[in-house]
Amino acid sequence: MAEVFKVALAGLGTVGGGVVKLLQEQKDVLLKRCGKMIELTAVADLNPDRAKELNLSDRVAFYQDAREMIEKAQADVIIELIGGANGIAYELCLSSLNKGKNFVTANKAMIAHHGNELARLAEEHGVFFGYEAAVAGGIPIIKALREGLVGNRISEVYGILNGTCNYILTMMRETGRSFDDVLSEAQKLGYAEADPSFDIDGIDTAHKTCILGSLAFGMPIDLQALSVEGIRFITDADIAFAEELGFRIKLLGVGRRYDDGVSLNVYPCMIPQTAEIAHVDGVFNAVITEGDFVGHSMFVGRGAGERPTASAVVADIADAAMQRGLPLLTVANKEIEQVPVVSLAEREGEYYVRFEVKDQPGVVAEIARILGNKKVSIASMIQRGQNQKGNVPLIMTFHKSKEASVTAALTEIERLECVPDKPCMIRIERL
Amino acid sequence: MAEVFKVALAGLGTVGGGVVKLLQEQKDVLLKRCGKMIELTAVADLNPDRAKELNLSDRVAFYQDAREMIEKAQADVIIELIGGANGIAYELCLSSLNKGKNFVTANKAMIAHHGNELARLAEEHGVFFGYEAAVAGGIPIIKALREGLVGNRISEVYGILNGTCNYILTMMRETGRSFDDVLSEAQKLGYAEADPSFDIDGIDTAHKTCILGSLAFGMPIDLQALSVEGIRFITDADIAFAEELGFRIKLLGVGRRYDDGVSLNVYPCMIPQTAEIAHVDGVFNAVITEGDFVGHSMFVGRGAGERPTASAVVADIADAAMQRGLPLLTVANKEIEQVPVVSLAEREGEYYVRFEVKDQPGVVAEIARILGNKKVSIASMIQRGQNQKGNVPLIMTFHKSKEASVTAALTEIERLECVPDKPCMIRIERL
Repeated sequence: MAEVFKVALAGLGTVGGGVVKLLQEQKDVLLKRCGKMIELTAVADLNPDRAKELNLSDRVAFYQDAREMIEKAQADVIIELIGGANGIAYELCLSSLNKGKNFVTANKAMIAHHGNELARLAEEHGVFFGYEAAVAGGIPIIKALREGLVGNRISEVYGILNGTCNYILTMMRETGRSFDDVLSEAQKLGYAEADPSFDIDGIDTAHKTCILGSLAFGMPIDLQALSVEGIRFITDADIAFAEELGFRIKLLGVGRRYDDGVSLNVYPCMIPQTAEIAHVDGVFNAVITEGDFVGHSMFVGRGAGERPTASAVVADIADAAMQRGLPLLTVANKEIEQVPVVSLAEREGEYYVRFEVKDQPGVVAEIARILGNKKVSIASMIQRGQNQKGNVPLIMTFHKSKEASVTAALTEIERLECVPDKPCMIRIERL
Repeated sequence: MAEVFKVALAGLGTVGGGVVKLLQEQKDVLLKRCGKMIELTAVADLNPDRAKELNLSDRVAFYQDAREMIEKAQADVIIELIGGANGIAYELCLSSLNKGKNFVTANKAMIAHHGNELARLAEEHGVFFGYEAAVAGGIPIIKALREGLVGNRISEVYGILNGTCNYILTMMRETGRSFDDVLSEAQKLGYAEADPSFDIDGIDTAHKTCILGSLAFGMPIDLQALSVEGIRFITDADIAFAEELGFRIKLLGVGRRYDDGVSLNVYPCMIPQTAEIAHVDGVFNAVITEGDFVGHSMFVGRGAGERPTASAVVADIADAAMQRGLPLLTVANKEIEQVPVVSLAEREGEYYVRFEVKDQPGVVAEIARILGNKKVSIASMIQRGQNQKGNVPLIMTFHKSKEASVTAALTEIERLECVPDKPCMIRIERL
């Protein structure tokens, strides 16, 4: 008889249900590949109906209170799929670690907020802590960064990390429809939450970016270090102008190591249509890394959803069963290095700006004068006829400039009487 | 003091030199990430100058005879970077395994020819056997398939696995030049060997495909099961017609699981220009997998070269140091299943064919009649003016047909007096 590895799972929502199904359907495969029988012994959910719908065997104990499950269930690993940075998920995590239980989670918010503390606890208690599902469910990127690329110093890690945003931006481009229009359709289809802020304001991408940044650069988890922009301000006009200029707009999490520090940020970018990541559309995610030995690598897969996320959770369970653990942040806590944060104001890059200006003489001259004073040089310009508001869209791209100068120029331009709306600025990344 | 993990390396060619450099340059990083000091203790190469050029420390023992190194050197793992399916590489491998030494290699030919035997030996002696560098050096695909996607039944694995072929096909497309012309340039630049057959006839891709197939489908390594076509017969005309029809030509290794067996093959394909893999150009490799839970995933990176391959070798060394071993073919040998091979004759797919026909009446009617008799239906046709030989290129694509019917029709067409040359057939894959 093969050894049994016991799994207790808290949270039978979409992902939890997927993990239960995977453990049922792939029992034979997992036994062969892990050399152990991975067995679900307990589940917990506030809603008992969820357990009933999953047709669990009688040998799986059900608990309405996940805390009780942790106390009573026989388990070699606890799986937390409740979600949320704090609350019950965090409480379960702390008590599991304090009891010396191996722990697996898909909870990026919790790791982004408490990762350093959890890393210390996991190390103190010598337990396995897996979170492959926390970043880009369908892409085994945590394992790739920590193990596959172990011999590399990583200089860059960036990616499309939120399927909802990528779906919205893709649909806007394909249909020419407005942001609001596409968002409400995405909500109807279940691709966006009723309260979409977590996704479309870049918060989810920020959680994932700070996790990737920590693993890539050997630094603590530091959510506060990120500047975060979402996609709410992107208009159908920007999407159309991007196409005309040879770009696509993607929301990216971007981590870069410089000589004097690291920058970690989330913002929508104009990327060349020839960039490989420009073709990662819809609900797909992509992560790109630059390592000093391996060079350029790209990983693409589904970002979320019941089955891809379950695949990632089960990869962690298999690692736990086979005792293939690593410290939570890859290296022992004493080896984690505080790294200075390079702010976006220091960015040297190209920019796209859409001004909405009054249709009157001298406007371009005024704007160009202010840009010139700030040493921001215009690379290209498009001007079109009046839009519905009676304003004229004026599109400019800037040659490589310092972001602080661009921001200063735009603040000044915004004050002009002939520029009634706030200019829309999108960074260009030549990836 | 951290524990020391001792490495002995045979073969100081391009990859061997890269591994030595990586172990020197990243000593600090590896110590942090592995918790052990990875130390090169011995190297072997027929040419002592190679060792001298690498400025090895005095503590590294040099052996001209790798066999002697295996006998005498203190080592926790033996790295074989000599290459070749048989000969000294194979001899070293057998003696290392028989001595119970952990073993790491980049030698795809050896695994493709002797993988099953080596898997038995490695299991018998309970040693670590790593070969991440054997397939797509810059892509940690072996680890991804075995660990990251552990919870999935894989239905498809395919990829661009040979950088030389991908470089040649990319250059032919970008410059419009002939195969021979681009090949000889690639040889001058060091992207192709003096004897290029191993790459351009698809043998290297076949080695990698049978390894990926075994890992994806849980079957033995079986190089004989593959049908292998290279790219020698692709002309600049085919490249141009592919563009016109909305395709790109790529040499792919393709593994598919059907209800009644598995097919593993290597052939150049026409793939839609919209397929993501169509944009993987030059010396880059890509591997795509379809898993029943994770869905579609793609992995892209450099396929070969000193530094990317060294990155893969060192990932294996780290796994050996951290005792993260798996059976050579992922599952224990008794779990490996013989799977029936579905031959290419059974393929149901679309096809591109270029006929060179005499410029005379009735030719198209003749060809169309034969195709119709074999139930092969024409999807599109392009006919152009005479080429230099005075023949007329006639391009056809076929709707989904059984390959056996297509082959039978082409054999008959080839016998026609008005078709002086062998038709050129390229499979279309809607990836």
